[in-house]
Amino acid sequence: MNGADSLVRTAVASGIRICFANPGTTELPLVAALDENPGIRPVLCLFEGVCSGAADGYARMSGSPAMTLLHLGPGFANAIANLHNARRAASGVFNVVGDHASWHVDTDPPLAADIVSLASPVSGWLHSARSSSDLARDAAEAIRAAQSGVVSTLIVPHDAQLLAAAAGEVARAPDPLAPVPGSAVDESARLLRGGGTTALLLGGAALTRRGLHAAARIAGQSGCRLWCDTFPARLERGGDLPAVERLPYFAEQAVDALSGLSALVLAGTRPPVSFFGYPGIPSRLVPEDCPTAQLAGAGDDVTQALEELAQALGGAADPRAPAPRNPVGRPSGSLTPEKVAAVVAELQPEGAIVMDESLTASTAYFEAAVSSAPHSYLALTGGAIGQGLPAGSGAALACPDRPVIALQADGSGMYTIQALWSQAREGLDVTNIVFANRGYRILMLELARAGIAELGAQARGLTEFEPAPDWARLARGFGVPGTRVSDAEGLWKELERALEEPGPHLIEVLL
Amino acid sequence: MNGADSLVRTAVASGIRICFANPGTTELPLVAALDENPGIRPVLCLFEGVCSGAADGYARMSGSPAMTLLHLGPGFANAIANLHNARRAASGVFNVVGDHASWHVDTDPPLAADIVSLASPVSGWLHSARSSSDLARDAAEAIRAAQSGVVSTLIVPHDAQLLAAAAGEVARAPDPLAPVPGSAVDESARLLRGGGTTALLLGGAALTRRGLHAAARIAGQSGCRLWCDTFPARLERGGDLPAVERLPYFAEQAVDALSGLSALVLAGTRPPVSFFGYPGIPSRLVPEDCPTAQLAGAGDDVTQALEELAQALGGAADPRAPAPRNPVGRPSGSLTPEKVAAVVAELQPEGAIVMDESLTASTAYFEAAVSSAPHSYLALTGGAIGQGLPAGSGAALACPDRPVIALQADGSGMYTIQALWSQAREGLDVTNIVFANRGYRILMLELARAGIAELGAQARGLTEFEPAPDWARLARGFGVPGTRVSDAEGLWKELERALEEPGPHLIEVLL
Repeated sequence: MNGADSLVRTAVASGIRICFANPGTTELPLVAALDENPGIRPVLCLFEGVCSGAADGYARMSGSPAMTLLHLGPGFANAIANLHNARRAASGVFNVVGDHASWHVDTDPPLAADIVSLASPVSGWLHSARSSSDLARDAAEAIRAAQSGVVSTLIVPHDAQLLAAAAGEVARAPDPLAPVPGSAVDESARLLRGGGTTALLLGGAALTRRGLHAAARIAGQSGCRLWCDTFPARLERGGDLPAVERLPYFAEQAVDALSGLSALVLAGTRPPVSFFGYPGIPSRLVPEDCPTAQLAGAGDDVTQALEELAQALGGAADPRAPAPRNPVGRPSGSLTPEKVAAVVAELQPEGAIVMDESLTASTAYFEAAVSSAPHSYLALTGGAIGQGLPAGSGAALACPDRPVIALQADGSGMYTIQALWSQAREGLDVTNIVFANRGYRILMLELARAGIAELGAQARGLTEFEPAPDWARLARGFGVPGTRVSDAEGLWKELERALEEPGPHLIEVLL
Repeated sequence: MNGADSLVRTAVASGIRICFANPGTTELPLVAALDENPGIRPVLCLFEGVCSGAADGYARMSGSPAMTLLHLGPGFANAIANLHNARRAASGVFNVVGDHASWHVDTDPPLAADIVSLASPVSGWLHSARSSSDLARDAAEAIRAAQSGVVSTLIVPHDAQLLAAAAGEVARAPDPLAPVPGSAVDESARLLRGGGTTALLLGGAALTRRGLHAAARIAGQSGCRLWCDTFPARLERGGDLPAVERLPYFAEQAVDALSGLSALVLAGTRPPVSFFGYPGIPSRLVPEDCPTAQLAGAGDDVTQALEELAQALGGAADPRAPAPRNPVGRPSGSLTPEKVAAVVAELQPEGAIVMDESLTASTAYFEAAVSSAPHSYLALTGGAIGQGLPAGSGAALACPDRPVIALQADGSGMYTIQALWSQAREGLDVTNIVFANRGYRILMLELARAGIAELGAQARGLTEFEPAPDWARLARGFGVPGTRVSDAEGLWKELERALEEPGPHLIEVLL
């Protein structure tokens, strides 16, 4: 057994079941080890940003980390943007990055780069392996960290992979969630009983079914409003779940929403901040005079804490009031984000996983789908665009029996378009809906908000993309059936068909 | 005038003429400044890896740095792989990266990341701007560094862009090249006069026409062999230029090539090392007992030094012996890398710029084109794949009157396929030839070299990509006329047509 074998065996023993990979010469012993030690399904991605985005989507839907296999500093660098999103989502990822042989790296060969410097901004756990005999222990530690929701990066020199190793299968038990002290529950209960307009802001595991049912009981008892982070990693919605409002994206709207609150309780998230800094608008969105309690933070057992809080407030049964049905009707004619949202919200099947990177179209969809059949909603957590197509693919691999719908802005989707090939190759049941407004609409909005209404030719050229790419054709080039629609009737028909047929589809929606 | 204006005016005054950009909200004052201060052409790229690769190609062909405009840490991260190649090519690049407002960043908003840690591995010059009034000076320093052939990265907080600034246009003169001491010339002359098999290894500016003509005189006087780095940033070839051999890629072949040398002189490059470390093969390829002289290093005036060396050796006129004509003939039938190479070498017009990221097909082309019409040859310097399509695009923008031919391996081309859109939008005269062998052939070779002849299903799945992407269709999706050929006659016809028609083309060559 060599170091690579001991690493792979440890990963198998630790529960790793999938590896999103784009290996190179320095990772070939690991490729051979994946061959010889069954238990991990390797999924080739044609760009590393697809690997990391898929690992994020997989972790959100399976609750378990995926492994990635990446080639040296440049290969890791290509994965960084989506690892940034994974970090913000608290998605565990187990990155394995090959490095030059330890006896070779001092010659500064062409592909040498400072991998530690590249990896540290996104890695909650980071280590450069020193010898083949340490690899089993290193991998076990890395995976344990990933199981607690951090991005783990293990750098493995080529010689450490190749040389002999004695051990494998040293699985470590993940750290348990920290129980929440009774004082936090009491303080939260006190604030919510205090009268006025109170709110509960939910994130992380508070947005599971169990967390949301507890939150509904709390709202039923205290009359507090239920909010979630603007970009939740995973939010269960629809069916008998309570309607949860989303904090608005633009800071001034969020400030408005939070103004006049008499108290705020945070559960599984932190005090909200503005996405960007705008002169004259506060960075911290909660009013300074608003009493705030932290019921539970990111690493705490937030669902347990919510249940204790519900109990403290009176212990009434979950009212399970279904969200009010939004009458969306069956739209017709030329398409708007609202009409697309209505069609999707209406047709999405029970159990759907909706990966939303539609950006400026997201508000319309979020409102329309409040009373759709039960589904999971995944958002772009870190703002690094190019997450939707890969994360949708990873979610489909985590849940092969559930349909995935990827709501994808065209500019963002272009970043990791290679994910379509993985969808075709793996036969994933993903329906990609591309919102083709042919520009970076969010930038146009931000320019207008900054008082630049009249764009010059240069600025226009940097925010619009004409001639526009033909997404339907691009999809077919990757092996995914692709169509293009320009009215609501066409979208309805194509979406029905895509959801009925197995395998991936792409519908380009001309806005 | 605000900080962004002062930065852009300084860039214009310092000779910056183009900016490869994918801005976000934190860079909007710079977008507005590009609008209001003419002189820099902004070129939108749909992925940052295209920005950095295009900047590299532009620098190699223009001799001047381009600016890039990138969005925060994740946007920069997407540019890293091709900045790594630019660094290895000694291509100057002037990166401008926006950051959150200084008063906002402490709240750790979703897009915050440690940009300095991400940037330092690829940046020879790196600075976080502190105030709007410093931006002119910061930009002037960054550009001066880039003009000396390093990747410069200037991080500019949003408030520094927005606030008032007094000055602009503080252009700095770039550092002059360091003159080479007479002792280095004397030592090199002594070694080359010493008899036996001697060689001159050329890199950097030694591979310009002037450098190569001096090298030809040296070879004529001393009988030394002429070699160049395996992956030259830019090599002038063809016509009356001397044939230069390329050091082989695989270490054992390079060791063979260098064994038995009685002396080696290095001009504009460093002692060669193995691309990867292979057990049992030395990292440093020059035999330990081979006397070696460093005529000139990367920052030195190598062309002047070569002329002085030629003078020292006897001062004979440049023999200008043209490279022997390789009889390639007109191939027919199903395609091999050799047949593709023969067709390209025959048809490539005088003045062509050939960007070669064909990897396993490169040897065949390099041999075939030795006696083609005069042309510039650009290689993948840093081994970070995905350079060819962007760098070819940047080269076309640097030299709008010269045709560009991008020889592109399919696996590598997939990394930055978004470059095709920039070619279409800017109407660039680039003919992309995609070598579709439908797999990472280099990995299969390396697996075989490592003694793994029988690939299991897992390893096969990570080295082959079936079902293969349809490159011709993908090209058309981006707005580039795309065709697919499977025999030499078809390639000849399509390549003739692509070279005659203006604008970009893509020919997928089925191997």
